[in-house]
Amino acid sequence: MTYRAPVKDMLFVMKELAGIDELTKLPAFEDAGYDTAQAVLEECAKFNEDVVAPLNVEGDRNPSTFKDGKVIATSGFKEAFKQFGEGGWQGLQHPTDFGGQGLPKLIGAACGEMINSANVSFALCPLLTDGAIEALLTAGSDEQKQTFLPNMLSGKWTGSMNLTEPQAGSDLSLVRTRAEPQADGTYKIFGTKIFITWGEHDMAENIVHLVLARVQGAPEGVKGISLFIVPKFLVNADGSLGARNDAHCVSIEHKMGIKASPTCVLQFGDHGGAIGTLVGQENRGLEYMFIMMNAARFGVGVQGIAVAERSYQHAVAYARDRLQSRPVDGSMNSAAPIIHHPDVRRMLMTMRAYTEACRAMALVGASAFDAAHEHPDAAVRAENQAFYEFMVPLIKGYSTEMSIEVASLGVQVHGGMGFIEETGAAQYMRDSKILTIYEGTTAIQANDFVGRKTARDGGTAARAIAAHVEPTEQALAASSNADAQAFGKRLTAAREAFLDAVGFIAGNTKSSPNAAFAGSVPYLMLAGNLVGGWQLGRALLVALDKLAAGDDTAFMTAKIATARFYGDHILSKAPGVRDSIVDGAAGCLAMPLEAF
Amino acid sequence: MTYRAPVKDMLFVMKELAGIDELTKLPAFEDAGYDTAQAVLEECAKFNEDVVAPLNVEGDRNPSTFKDGKVIATSGFKEAFKQFGEGGWQGLQHPTDFGGQGLPKLIGAACGEMINSANVSFALCPLLTDGAIEALLTAGSDEQKQTFLPNMLSGKWTGSMNLTEPQAGSDLSLVRTRAEPQADGTYKIFGTKIFITWGEHDMAENIVHLVLARVQGAPEGVKGISLFIVPKFLVNADGSLGARNDAHCVSIEHKMGIKASPTCVLQFGDHGGAIGTLVGQENRGLEYMFIMMNAARFGVGVQGIAVAERSYQHAVAYARDRLQSRPVDGSMNSAAPIIHHPDVRRMLMTMRAYTEACRAMALVGASAFDAAHEHPDAAVRAENQAFYEFMVPLIKGYSTEMSIEVASLGVQVHGGMGFIEETGAAQYMRDSKILTIYEGTTAIQANDFVGRKTARDGGTAARAIAAHVEPTEQALAASSNADAQAFGKRLTAAREAFLDAVGFIAGNTKSSPNAAFAGSVPYLMLAGNLVGGWQLGRALLVALDKLAAGDDTAFMTAKIATARFYGDHILSKAPGVRDSIVDGAAGCLAMPLEAF
Repeated sequence: MTYRAPVKDMLFVMKELAGIDELTKLPAFEDAGYDTAQAVLEECAKFNEDVVAPLNVEGDRNPSTFKDGKVIATSGFKEAFKQFGEGGWQGLQHPTDFGGQGLPKLIGAACGEMINSANVSFALCPLLTDGAIEALLTAGSDEQKQTFLPNMLSGKWTGSMNLTEPQAGSDLSLVRTRAEPQADGTYKIFGTKIFITWGEHDMAENIVHLVLARVQGAPEGVKGISLFIVPKFLVNADGSLGARNDAHCVSIEHKMGIKASPTCVLQFGDHGGAIGTLVGQENRGLEYMFIMMNAARFGVGVQGIAVAERSYQHAVAYARDRLQSRPVDGSMNSAAPIIHHPDVRRMLMTMRAYTEACRAMALVGASAFDAAHEHPDAAVRAENQAFYEFMVPLIKGYSTEMSIEVASLGVQVHGGMGFIEETGAAQYMRDSKILTIYEGTTAIQANDFVGRKTARDGGTAARAIAAHVEPTEQALAASSNADAQAFGKRLTAAREAFLDAVGFIAGNTKSSPNAAFAGSVPYLMLAGNLVGGWQLGRALLVALDKLAAGDDTAFMTAKIATARFYGDHILSKAPGVRDSIVDGAAGCLAMPLEAF
Repeated sequence: MTYRAPVKDMLFVMKELAGIDELTKLPAFEDAGYDTAQAVLEECAKFNEDVVAPLNVEGDRNPSTFKDGKVIATSGFKEAFKQFGEGGWQGLQHPTDFGGQGLPKLIGAACGEMINSANVSFALCPLLTDGAIEALLTAGSDEQKQTFLPNMLSGKWTGSMNLTEPQAGSDLSLVRTRAEPQADGTYKIFGTKIFITWGEHDMAENIVHLVLARVQGAPEGVKGISLFIVPKFLVNADGSLGARNDAHCVSIEHKMGIKASPTCVLQFGDHGGAIGTLVGQENRGLEYMFIMMNAARFGVGVQGIAVAERSYQHAVAYARDRLQSRPVDGSMNSAAPIIHHPDVRRMLMTMRAYTEACRAMALVGASAFDAAHEHPDAAVRAENQAFYEFMVPLIKGYSTEMSIEVASLGVQVHGGMGFIEETGAAQYMRDSKILTIYEGTTAIQANDFVGRKTARDGGTAARAIAAHVEPTEQALAASSNADAQAFGKRLTAAREAFLDAVGFIAGNTKSSPNAAFAGSVPYLMLAGNLVGGWQLGRALLVALDKLAAGDDTAFMTAKIATARFYGDHILSKAPGVRDSIVDGAAGCLAMPLEAF
């Protein structure tokens, strides 16, 4: 199945919902307006459709292989990654100082969706490299930046994030990898890291491992963790590659999905010690790690949208093609393409509505990130930063959970053929299941959302978001259009449900933490549902205006239909989820642990 | 992970909800009371835990193989199937006339859950054989019964169901396989059948293929389909095996899950014609096929429960073992087993509540089947038959959809380890995805539920079910127990939501079929949710009584907690689903087909 990037929907969201025209007024982005976005997206679509997408199935069938400490990527990946680097895609949203293009995250996020729709396994390598770049940009020394960033931005070298250890997954306080200071200012690193995505491969000349470790004598727990650069090959003063560092891949995992992406066990220091240099200050590693992590969490949310989009396109193509049974309304006298059947349409609409809502949510978040970094007014920066931080767990948590549901529906649309691997639909479902787990499980996102984003300020930020939704509701209610009115009612009900949940979470996190956290994931899902719905409500209003003006009737009609579907089939879940949060703790916590 | 059959919960459901004591009063089952059930279940548990379950992972890693027309089952399967036959398990619920044990479906269903928890791929062979046995019992001639049934009941021969063709999946009117009458009364069969589960293998001496085909000159569509027995080896008059029939496996599929179960393409008649004998009368094949199909649909629903149970057990074991992060309530000063974390408990409770609700629903359905077949009073038989037929699409549709959600949660509880195949959790998720597809997709179940089970009688049967729920609500409301009261309110809300949906479906199926069928799957899910909740509500009431009497406190406390959780987290979805059904058609049908 050919992938076609949804450039039109992306541009619509950028212009009408994510404020690209406002962004262009910022000095940093004056050349990054709508026309630039369009040109970049079209070029990006071409590359991913033609070069990256065709490798997706190949990677699933013939994953990266491991032998004698080396990983060989799936055939074709190395060449595609070379083109990716040469095309400037790795440096897209990074500073021009180091060879990047300095484009906003708004454009970067759309391009990120495309490469992930094309091939999640392939896209993980640049995604992790982006995280490492962000961390070095923020906390690296000038020398570190000069040494590593130009080669990382050009795609010559890649990055990896080394957090997890066998005993330390979600709980990084348990990290045991140790760093021993050396006389020359470097450190020797000793330890085992697991689940290291693209931690070893043959697509780049060097791999810049960013590694969490403890310096001897550091405090226990997360306050004693430092961040180190441990390159696969040491780098000489002139920038040329030096000795092979003592950081070796000892095995790769056999996984349910994203098979082409090698998930490595890396052994540091088994042959005398891996040489690392400290990033920033000792014991502030967790803080720097969160920079990588937040970039990566946003990126993983986009992966969810990407997989959902690809799964949707695959299912639509099959549903147009497959003839089976007459329509129930008697409109045809022979077996019809199954897209005529109401339940197939319901499944496809579910897939589409989730995907468009989450895309809008992510791009609106990306735009806030850009304003938070580049707006001249500090107050505006702060406001956007707060909004962005509020959105990250939603973008990560909601978009990835929905991607599993969407990809499962994608298989379902195919019937028995969906279960046959050759059809391709099953891969999206298998790939999607990692998205709710890595870079912080859905529960970890929900903990963040409950703790830092809601309880810490007593629900103020959460209620402010809800207040932002109200004008959209009012505009929908004021419309004479039936779809707008119906959607407006759902949005109001969802916002009210959300406010009840905010009250419960803000009121109980300290006094009854088990009760509050028992509702944490449903609360995250409710918030994602509301914010996604809010964006589709805004889109619906724009589409009505455009339709009245005779602009692009087909696109606007489809947008209205999609929003209406989201309202009646997805937003309509919100009051029930509120009940699970507000009334659900008793049932959740009553079971004695030994009775499970 | 060791599987432990939930014998205690099964016996509780049989005695307290499914009326095994009433069943024992029927002449056919006078020896099949509670004590017999207990003895059979314990024996069955032992066999499946010790013999079948250990082969589950092996089958996933080393699936059945195909070479030169022959399928070799995963190592160990043949020996286990021999033990299965010798243990009398294939004949468990079949007539003693042909060597069966004549036990009720109530006991058979519980045993079916065990073998499917142990190993879905393995269990499919007896499941399909059961379907073939049912069809022969109902429509076969005396000679056919004598020739085939004893060997099928003993496990010496197996059965297969040959319905699907490349162009005829859900739509059997498109079947093209043809049957040419021969002078000796047999037929020559020509055609290709796909997706034939265990259509070829080395576990039995013969395979009794039941094949749908058209006799020349038969009417078009489903009214021109006949059913034939086409054995792999012809059977001589003395019962010995004769010539190899012209029915050959030409390939097996490469699937997402149930990998050990060979899914065959069977070619009939490529070398002159496969010899078949007609079952029953010409052109009544679809009717007989539905006998197989209904048995198989019930069985697949049980598979959903089985996979969910196994996935739950796997997740609980990991959650007890894995240490990660301190509890949010500050109750421990070091990393705790993750089962202490509220969201992990929420996930485990979701898995457990769905599983227990669906198990109760299936066993109550099985008991109705038994009464429908064996009760001396025709009116009671008819009533039970109607109830059973109403339940089959719910048992199939709801239990299998929930199994995907449960198995996905099972992976989630494991975090990153869940995505690694060696952990075993991923297999349940991959296996579960076929369950919503084969033997009629969820949409096909929903069509049946909307058309035959609701609209045909104007919603009378559906409303009668709802009326049956009311006494349970009243008893819950009258209880002084807070869990009972809370659950009762959810049950009332769910029943009212269901009645609204019944009104909509009954009122629109003829006049606005697209609108009614757009809500068909949500309607099926709502009904399943209600009926499952009803059974847990009944269980809650029993548990309160037992608790008051001091009986088995731990079990009864857990049952109450599980019901309460189901009420607040699952039944609470019902009003939202009602909205999707009653208000959802507009959004579902508005998108122009070309705009997808």
